[in-house]
Amino acid sequence: MEQNFIIAVLVSNISGVLSRVSGMFTRRSFNIDSLTVGETESSGFSRITITFHGDERIKEQIVKQLEKLHDVKEVQVLGGNDTVTRELVLIKVRNTAESRQDIMTAVEIFRSKIVDYSPAALTCELTGETHKINAFIELVKPYGIIEMCRTGIVALERGENSLQTKK
Amino acid sequence: MEQNFIIAVLVSNISGVLSRVSGMFTRRSFNIDSLTVGETESSGFSRITITFHGDERIKEQIVKQLEKLHDVKEVQVLGGNDTVTRELVLIKVRNTAESRQDIMTAVEIFRSKIVDYSPAALTCELTGETHKINAFIELVKPYGIIEMCRTGIVALERGENSLQTKK
Repeated sequence: MEQNFIIAVLVSNISGVLSRVSGMFTRRSFNIDSLTVGETESSGFSRITITFHGDERIKEQIVKQLEKLHDVKEVQVLGGNDTVTRELVLIKVRNTAESRQDIMTAVEIFRSKIVDYSPAALTCELTGETHKINAFIELVKPYGIIEMCRTGIVALERGENSLQTKK
Repeated sequence: MEQNFIIAVLVSNISGVLSRVSGMFTRRSFNIDSLTVGETESSGFSRITITFHGDERIKEQIVKQLEKLHDVKEVQVLGGNDTVTRELVLIKVRNTAESRQDIMTAVEIFRSKIVDYSPAALTCELTGETHKINAFIELVKPYGIIEMCRTGIVALERGENSLQTKK
């Protein structure tokens, strides 16, 4: 059965690991849906969050392969009720006299923020779970999305543990 | 002179391009500070946002190399006043009777949100420009950061243009 998976990977040396990680996905024809890399609480370590879809067997292969890679310190499968997930999107929408009020209403209801405003376009920022981001995109799509930039998912386990304390 | 750069890359086929992009950075010993990949307004296209530091010469080399890569459709250097940048962070901070009120005050002032709360830890979500995210992290660091996950920067040019209309 196809499912969506979220994997957090603690690594040292970003660009080196990144090419090994993405190379592994390419060679095995696994598709990455989103990927983010950013600093962590410890300098020298970065955290890669990868989302992909596939079945249980593919997920297990990916975890096993990731754990083998050089500079990978820890791998954690996240998801479900024990995980907080968030995504950020910047969306530039066409701004017209006809659509302006409708867009502003959507912005207000979703607690989005206007971060740039010009006579022909307005850019909104929205943070939330994927389904909220998707719903907002669908809502403003009819008015004309000029450009859009999604961060991809970041995720932390609920409660007081961390990837490093688990080590 | 060392500067921070933001480059947006419009690509098809995420994992293939990602290994070529990160491979290029590794081979040339350029360091990636952050990287995000996410969907765009056009299905079949993804947008990679890379931040790195270096001098003007390094930036020009990187742009030229990126433009040559297979599956790369468009490359844009962003930054400065013409660019909206945002970042998202999830931070899990130690929750104690002594620190709780101070953390809650920081959360309120920065308009952060508590997204998970347990007796020993609380997880905050914060969206903003990099300097705001950094200031918040510095503020809560003394209370003990258990775990942190940053998306890395996403960026859009202000106004009504898009990477694709520029093509």
